[in-house]
Amino acid sequence: MAVNSPLPVAAELKPVAGIELGYAEAGIKKPNRKDVLVMKLAEGATVAGVFTKNRFCAAPVQVSKANLAAVKAGGKPIRALVVNTGNANAGTGEPGLANAQATCAEVAHLLGLDAQQVLPFSTGVILEPLPVQKIVAGLPAAIANLKADNWFNAAEAIMTTDTQPKAASLTTTVGGHTVTMTGISKGAGMIKPNMATMLGYLAFDAKVAQPVLDELVKYAADRSFNSITIDGDTSTNDSFILVATGAGSLVVDSTDSPDYIALRDAVTGISRHLAQQIIRDGEGATKFITITVEQGRDMDECRKIAYAIAHSPLVKTAFFASDPNLGRILAAIGYAGVDDLDTAKLDLYLDDVLVAKSGGRNPEYKEEDGQRVMKKAEILVRVVLARGDADATVWTCDLSHDYVSINADYRS
Amino acid sequence: MAVNSPLPVAAELKPVAGIELGYAEAGIKKPNRKDVLVMKLAEGATVAGVFTKNRFCAAPVQVSKANLAAVKAGGKPIRALVVNTGNANAGTGEPGLANAQATCAEVAHLLGLDAQQVLPFSTGVILEPLPVQKIVAGLPAAIANLKADNWFNAAEAIMTTDTQPKAASLTTTVGGHTVTMTGISKGAGMIKPNMATMLGYLAFDAKVAQPVLDELVKYAADRSFNSITIDGDTSTNDSFILVATGAGSLVVDSTDSPDYIALRDAVTGISRHLAQQIIRDGEGATKFITITVEQGRDMDECRKIAYAIAHSPLVKTAFFASDPNLGRILAAIGYAGVDDLDTAKLDLYLDDVLVAKSGGRNPEYKEEDGQRVMKKAEILVRVVLARGDADATVWTCDLSHDYVSINADYRS
Repeated sequence: MAVNSPLPVAAELKPVAGIELGYAEAGIKKPNRKDVLVMKLAEGATVAGVFTKNRFCAAPVQVSKANLAAVKAGGKPIRALVVNTGNANAGTGEPGLANAQATCAEVAHLLGLDAQQVLPFSTGVILEPLPVQKIVAGLPAAIANLKADNWFNAAEAIMTTDTQPKAASLTTTVGGHTVTMTGISKGAGMIKPNMATMLGYLAFDAKVAQPVLDELVKYAADRSFNSITIDGDTSTNDSFILVATGAGSLVVDSTDSPDYIALRDAVTGISRHLAQQIIRDGEGATKFITITVEQGRDMDECRKIAYAIAHSPLVKTAFFASDPNLGRILAAIGYAGVDDLDTAKLDLYLDDVLVAKSGGRNPEYKEEDGQRVMKKAEILVRVVLARGDADATVWTCDLSHDYVSINADYRS
Repeated sequence: MAVNSPLPVAAELKPVAGIELGYAEAGIKKPNRKDVLVMKLAEGATVAGVFTKNRFCAAPVQVSKANLAAVKAGGKPIRALVVNTGNANAGTGEPGLANAQATCAEVAHLLGLDAQQVLPFSTGVILEPLPVQKIVAGLPAAIANLKADNWFNAAEAIMTTDTQPKAASLTTTVGGHTVTMTGISKGAGMIKPNMATMLGYLAFDAKVAQPVLDELVKYAADRSFNSITIDGDTSTNDSFILVATGAGSLVVDSTDSPDYIALRDAVTGISRHLAQQIIRDGEGATKFITITVEQGRDMDECRKIAYAIAHSPLVKTAFFASDPNLGRILAAIGYAGVDDLDTAKLDLYLDDVLVAKSGGRNPEYKEEDGQRVMKKAEILVRVVLARGDADATVWTCDLSHDYVSINADYRS
């Protein structure tokens, strides 16, 4: 049972000028299933990404990072992305790298590019050789159906154990220019079996200089894909990619421009929406929890505390049980690793209910008020540190019987 | 269902010269239950402890730390310990501190000591006022039955939701002197509901100088109570106390003496046994897992990797399912935060089965060999980093349906 959220509807996903998407059913792991996606970018597009920090990072992540670095070193721009599901090409050593590069080479061959202009992505089982021949055999079909309005199909094509496609679209105005942005995401973080990968792709039609896009992708990722957590595990393949196609009229070439701020906030908002859909689709998730830590000295300490709460199995089971067990939350704050934290100044709210005041139980707090909040499907945990003006927000879900079942029963 | 381990038997717990133990049924939370323990130490005893690093540390922890510090500042030695169950006296502010001090004052009054010579400990529900009158009313009975051979009763007196008392005893020879050591422990880390506290007390009859004992308690704790984990949560009250009664013939006044090494290793061994009993009694635990990381650059990086494996809910559910899902273990190693780890050098064993070699699947590894190991009730995970000569070992258990049930259903 996943926390309900509105399904994206195909018609709501707006084409973004400068990017076309095509899919194929290549039979990588299962037949009759979209499992290859190609995204073709217009000339003038810029691309930036953030990737998993897992030391066992997958071959496609290594190739994507290298190809993005080549662009910055003066190489030709990225012009295509290729994604396969069914196999993560992780823990596959040198043959894995060769297979990722062979996939890029074939996409490049079919589109008239250099192999270095293609970024590869894989998601699926790890420690098994990538069936590169099946992918290569599927590419012509994917390229034959390249279309600007294929976003819903694209969202389906990158699904693995996701129960629903994840996508979002937005049209906004920045500095008088209309900007259209559409994105897709997949993967319930690590909640889904066998290292389910978190992937996100967001395209918009502004023209953005490479250094600006590099800054933007980090900013947006920190406040979206890097602020969601289901169980604290980090996959070998996680990637989040921004594509500025350059096909629209907005041009942003400095992070100092007011247009940058407006664009940045719109990109961050839609990225957050894509990331939150992953939490809402977490298998076993029955609650959607927002954890905000306010008035900290810096964002880092706020994130430490938010993550300590979000990762505590005791807190997560209390959410599952709708039990306002505030001692568990206070304890998680206490062991978050903020060494000089003065707990006597700290307030804790569940939605609008002040449960702990100045580090202890609020004398006016009634258990039934906490209970009322905990029974809701969406809950805000708000921690006020009263020692600065930094804040951070993290989104997570509860820990249920289904979580154990799904992760224990997989492969059996 | 807890992982089976031999129950301590009263007769096997040897008295330690220089320490007497007495208990009472004070009705703190429930009637007809041992819930107060007093330990009286002989003149000449030295005491050292390590305590929770949780910023919400409980009032008795604050008082114990202050009283130990007073000894080092030239104050009178610690001569008694008092433990209550049923209430943790945590998150209780100034009244909590006053209650912990009042408890010490009453013990001191009854034994003819100063209040600062008493260390208080509490375990139980948090955020509720300590019923200090009940404890004070129970103290005369506890002191009336002070006996050297009360260790089994003492182990029972500190139980909260533990399913069995935890204790161990050892007689060894150090430098020609016989040393007797007996200890008790309680609390399934954080697996038990509502911040169940981890407490450990170990006494032995050597005479040990204060600075030496301070070093010894840290050494032993790092390799025992600080190397077990159930779910990564840290309680507000965790404490581990070493008592060197000085009543025996062994005298250790330097960490450079060979006697120190021998004593240290014996103390560490029995501390580890006390700590492991906590893991074996973890509610919901069906497997006892030892994680050893070898050939690291330093102990810190070995511990990081061991803890990343031990805390991964995906790894823990795989153990519960007896699923040799080695990708989950490799991924946990990868995100442990050892930034320059060369995964291509890394080997991974399940017991004696080499599952991953040089960072990838061992070509000779067969799934059924991994399966055979994973079905066992006790499993060794061994990671070989091949980059140094440091190592670390952590003990943990699996994550089962019962874990969720116990922690979700508590208080309901």
